[in-house]
Amino acid sequence: MALLSRIRGPRDLDRLSPEQLDQLAAEIRSFLVDAVSKTGGHLGPNLGVVELTIALHRVFESPKDKVLWDTGHQSYVHKLLTGRQDFSKLKMKGGLSGYPAQAESDHDVIENSHASTVLGWADGLAKANEVLKKDDHVVAVIGDGALTGGMAWEALNNIAAAKDRPLVIVVNDNERSYAPTIGGLANHLATLRTTDGYERFLARGKDLLERTPVLGKPLYETLHGAKKGLKDFIAPQGMFEDLGLKYVGPIDGHDIEALESALQRAKRFGGPVIVHCLTEKGRGYQPALADEADRFHAVGKIHPDTGLPIASSGADWTSVFGEEMVKLGHEREDIVAITAAMLQPVGLDKFAKAFPDRVYDVGIAEQHAAVSAAGLATGGLHPVFAVYATFLNRAFDQVLMDVALHKCGVTFVLDRAGVTGTDGASHNGMWDMSILQVVPGLRIAAPRDADQVRAQLREAVEVKDAPTVVRYSKGAVGPAVKAVGRVGGMDVLREPAEGTKSPDVLLVSVGALAPMCLEIADLLDKQGISTTVVDPRWVKPVDAALPALAARHRVVVTVEDNSRVGGVGSAVAQALRDAGVDLPLRDFGIPPLFLDHASRKEVMAEIGLTAPDIARQVTGLVSKIDGRFEEPTDSVGAVEPAEAARD
Amino acid sequence: MALLSRIRGPRDLDRLSPEQLDQLAAEIRSFLVDAVSKTGGHLGPNLGVVELTIALHRVFESPKDKVLWDTGHQSYVHKLLTGRQDFSKLKMKGGLSGYPAQAESDHDVIENSHASTVLGWADGLAKANEVLKKDDHVVAVIGDGALTGGMAWEALNNIAAAKDRPLVIVVNDNERSYAPTIGGLANHLATLRTTDGYERFLARGKDLLERTPVLGKPLYETLHGAKKGLKDFIAPQGMFEDLGLKYVGPIDGHDIEALESALQRAKRFGGPVIVHCLTEKGRGYQPALADEADRFHAVGKIHPDTGLPIASSGADWTSVFGEEMVKLGHEREDIVAITAAMLQPVGLDKFAKAFPDRVYDVGIAEQHAAVSAAGLATGGLHPVFAVYATFLNRAFDQVLMDVALHKCGVTFVLDRAGVTGTDGASHNGMWDMSILQVVPGLRIAAPRDADQVRAQLREAVEVKDAPTVVRYSKGAVGPAVKAVGRVGGMDVLREPAEGTKSPDVLLVSVGALAPMCLEIADLLDKQGISTTVVDPRWVKPVDAALPALAARHRVVVTVEDNSRVGGVGSAVAQALRDAGVDLPLRDFGIPPLFLDHASRKEVMAEIGLTAPDIARQVTGLVSKIDGRFEEPTDSVGAVEPAEAARD
Repeated sequence: MALLSRIRGPRDLDRLSPEQLDQLAAEIRSFLVDAVSKTGGHLGPNLGVVELTIALHRVFESPKDKVLWDTGHQSYVHKLLTGRQDFSKLKMKGGLSGYPAQAESDHDVIENSHASTVLGWADGLAKANEVLKKDDHVVAVIGDGALTGGMAWEALNNIAAAKDRPLVIVVNDNERSYAPTIGGLANHLATLRTTDGYERFLARGKDLLERTPVLGKPLYETLHGAKKGLKDFIAPQGMFEDLGLKYVGPIDGHDIEALESALQRAKRFGGPVIVHCLTEKGRGYQPALADEADRFHAVGKIHPDTGLPIASSGADWTSVFGEEMVKLGHEREDIVAITAAMLQPVGLDKFAKAFPDRVYDVGIAEQHAAVSAAGLATGGLHPVFAVYATFLNRAFDQVLMDVALHKCGVTFVLDRAGVTGTDGASHNGMWDMSILQVVPGLRIAAPRDADQVRAQLREAVEVKDAPTVVRYSKGAVGPAVKAVGRVGGMDVLREPAEGTKSPDVLLVSVGALAPMCLEIADLLDKQGISTTVVDPRWVKPVDAALPALAARHRVVVTVEDNSRVGGVGSAVAQALRDAGVDLPLRDFGIPPLFLDHASRKEVMAEIGLTAPDIARQVTGLVSKIDGRFEEPTDSVGAVEPAEAARD
Repeated sequence: MALLSRIRGPRDLDRLSPEQLDQLAAEIRSFLVDAVSKTGGHLGPNLGVVELTIALHRVFESPKDKVLWDTGHQSYVHKLLTGRQDFSKLKMKGGLSGYPAQAESDHDVIENSHASTVLGWADGLAKANEVLKKDDHVVAVIGDGALTGGMAWEALNNIAAAKDRPLVIVVNDNERSYAPTIGGLANHLATLRTTDGYERFLARGKDLLERTPVLGKPLYETLHGAKKGLKDFIAPQGMFEDLGLKYVGPIDGHDIEALESALQRAKRFGGPVIVHCLTEKGRGYQPALADEADRFHAVGKIHPDTGLPIASSGADWTSVFGEEMVKLGHEREDIVAITAAMLQPVGLDKFAKAFPDRVYDVGIAEQHAAVSAAGLATGGLHPVFAVYATFLNRAFDQVLMDVALHKCGVTFVLDRAGVTGTDGASHNGMWDMSILQVVPGLRIAAPRDADQVRAQLREAVEVKDAPTVVRYSKGAVGPAVKAVGRVGGMDVLREPAEGTKSPDVLLVSVGALAPMCLEIADLLDKQGISTTVVDPRWVKPVDAALPALAARHRVVVTVEDNSRVGGVGSAVAQALRDAGVDLPLRDFGIPPLFLDHASRKEVMAEIGLTAPDIARQVTGLVSKIDGRFEEPTDSVGAVEPAEAARD
């Protein structure tokens, strides 16, 4: 790492020769494979953008110029070149974030990792430059996959409308998001890549461009002219140009000189311009290149030479769902599956293999997933849309206005719900059980173990006239938690000791937190506080039997892996008020903060979502009612702390 | 109405001659101007689609074939031709909905009026036909304005990917959504319309096409070939074709024969095809055609000859905001405004006139409005995005992940919040104060009168590090409601009678419901129940002084014009729990149902959101606490009724 270790910031790149730049690229690839195989992280996308990132930082002056990364998991090289080379705690507590982070560096602007946002950010920043009469540059890097998202289209349409507002869009085209990019746009991009003379162009293009006289005109125009002149063997770049966007490309995204030339000219152009770069995801790392399923998009800890996982985990929530879907597919021909460019991560790969004509990958397009599901349901099928919980936020309006208003039988399966941990603020699935509460008719299942995932998925796909949601956690699924009784539709997980006439606490456990709730009950037991633990299974609507059950206790406590605000606890509290059951209630969940990256366990401890913390709070409440002590209020935080942001 | 009155269903169109069809179109226009000027409603869009609707219903066999209308306000002609000719109570209780409605007719599929959804629905329905091996047709009508929405792009990208799945897309191009359609797409469409020979094409096109020999090939291909042959004076239809979508057009959207020919061939094509129709919004009605501001898009009651409003209303919430924005614009150069294709309806027209370089119409693209606002704020400006409350649902993820996570000072102004009434289920702004509760750092103002709109807008734009929301109702703003005191940041609107030691009720009033809350207090007074009425002004976060104030009362009551689920009442209840104030609380608001169209007053009465209803409930609660009576529970409905849908 002779060169890399001497790069403290982008300007250190300026004095390197072409040969040194190539050496630096090789060092960076070697560093990434070594570092990410130790910690886990996004490997493939970053191996693909090594040269592009070097070229961007040579051509633009970050942080004065704004270099923006869509989705953010392709920013590792950017971190290495902007003073952050300690990857030993990548995505761990106190270590580097897996995404850009304003707190880490002035070179980072966009922190979140929901796709397709970068063009909107760039449009806003470019408009601000115009109003404030600044001549800083704005350059946005977006993958071809992210262009399938509607936000990208909305932004392109706006960007194209202002012919004189400078903005450089780099399309990082690797032909895939997670899975190969699908749809009409992908076909169009493929045409650009494969048309007749394209191979010849790649071979001859660089020479040709270098020999093209510039004649005092921006090279961009020359390029453009050259392309027009070569139109019999270069496909017309119709779509972008029809929108009014100037287009440069395609450029070999692993040729630093070619990239710099194109970016320099785009920088000087004085209006919106697209630079179309072709890159290879996983470039330079044989195990990634050889893997068609793109498992190296994001990896756990792996052996760097073979790319094989070091530790293999047991059964996880995702695969339990995936296997049950295959069974359901055999039993019911009307069941179809939808994914938003994440077939394998959400566990639909086996279903797709068994029923290739009954699975739809809609691209990174959650809105379309939801609204086309409404159409599928209206057309007589039962669609199951499997998606990470955090990404369903994109389709809230469609769930409400298309699926629910029209009483469509659509099942939403929310993976990675609750605290996910190491991916940071934007990947926690902590909002779904709050915002979905308002959707009339929608039902939410929060299965507590693998058996319940299977059972509740089956219950969900039986509902014909309303949307259903099945939400579960990330990672390994715990052992089965048996019910000891049933009240209404709710499973009783623990009864108070026999002979307890009037138990103290009704503990409402949500989903995967069942074992924690049983532990809380044990701890309360030791304090002489008797507890019933109940799992409602379906948390919306609140079970009709819950108020009467609650009324037999002195206190109600709810525990959920979701934002406290407007979540299951609030819904239970409202149901009790509506029934006139005015008992003290305490609702435990995730405070209304954006959570920094750390392991799930560390995050849970930090926010007080542990059995000892909750048991202590509940003990305090019961003691207060008994007139024995004051109730502690240190970890049941105020709903909106004065500093309502990162802790 | 000799012909129109004899049309009972689409098949009655089959036997009409070309001359009769033209007469029918004239009768329909006359009917619409007459009917809508009496009731109010969407006039311009429907006058533009008379011939198109007739042609669609002659070519396709609704309801077996699915004829889908984007946004839905262009479906009046469709209603007239499918057995619904009593427009006397349009948008009124018991009368026809202003949008398609499944309950009205089997010919109606999509009920909601949020734009850009139709292509997603069509994609789902076409996929279902494929899986179920049905040969029914799916035809989707979408305006050029709605094509600026990201959902349309996501859908086009998916539709284009399946070359053999039949689907007809009719682009109803009238060059405007509410305002003239903006952006790169609009420019592209304009090119199609205006290129060189286009005028000649319109004049000659029909003759030309009629003379084109069909030669056993589908006319579509002939058309296509003709177009290619005429390429020196017809612009290439690049964009759609680049995506892989076949294209027919442009077609004169007021020529029934030309429309039928194009639709017939599109119907037979066997894959996705776009039929590009040019229509004139307001066609045949001089006051609409002469009005550049497009005030005839939707009208109140008007005089049919002049188009002038019959009753002029007083000051409304929108104009109070609009005028204050102009003042703020003069005072602060960093304030910019954003609209999603609704400059005039949200009251930004005056600001746009005063500061044309500081206003952005982003098209029907709420996601882009929010994310570009994050960019504008990061770039040093303070954007104010004014939008109908119901449409902000589209941008929830962007408010959360782009604006709030990045601590951007962006102000969202939500017009038409709460029960709006006659536009029906999809236009009520009843979800915003629930879903926005979960957004960390975001603050919500609910001004109670015009003075408060002005004051709170000014407070909002002072916040530099978090999103702010100012939400207000539709229509006329009531008289000023004076504060009689202040507790923390809250205005006290009414104190209990002097000498009341321990008042019974703390009544928390939200926004425009202040006069109703004062009336409730008067009614309670008559029952001997003493009440403090407080307006928190900022309803999120819950004012830090509220729990202590509440603790001086016996009961807390909240009243809001928003979904009861997860709204202000729930937030207040949680704040009280967190402070250990375990008082009985009752929260009044909108039940979790989709509300049928009726006047605001009728809807409020139906859901029990009236002073007498609430006073009766509160009296019951106080009596119960006193041990005098049972609490009535008939209108504080269960959170999720068994039939959680329309009442």
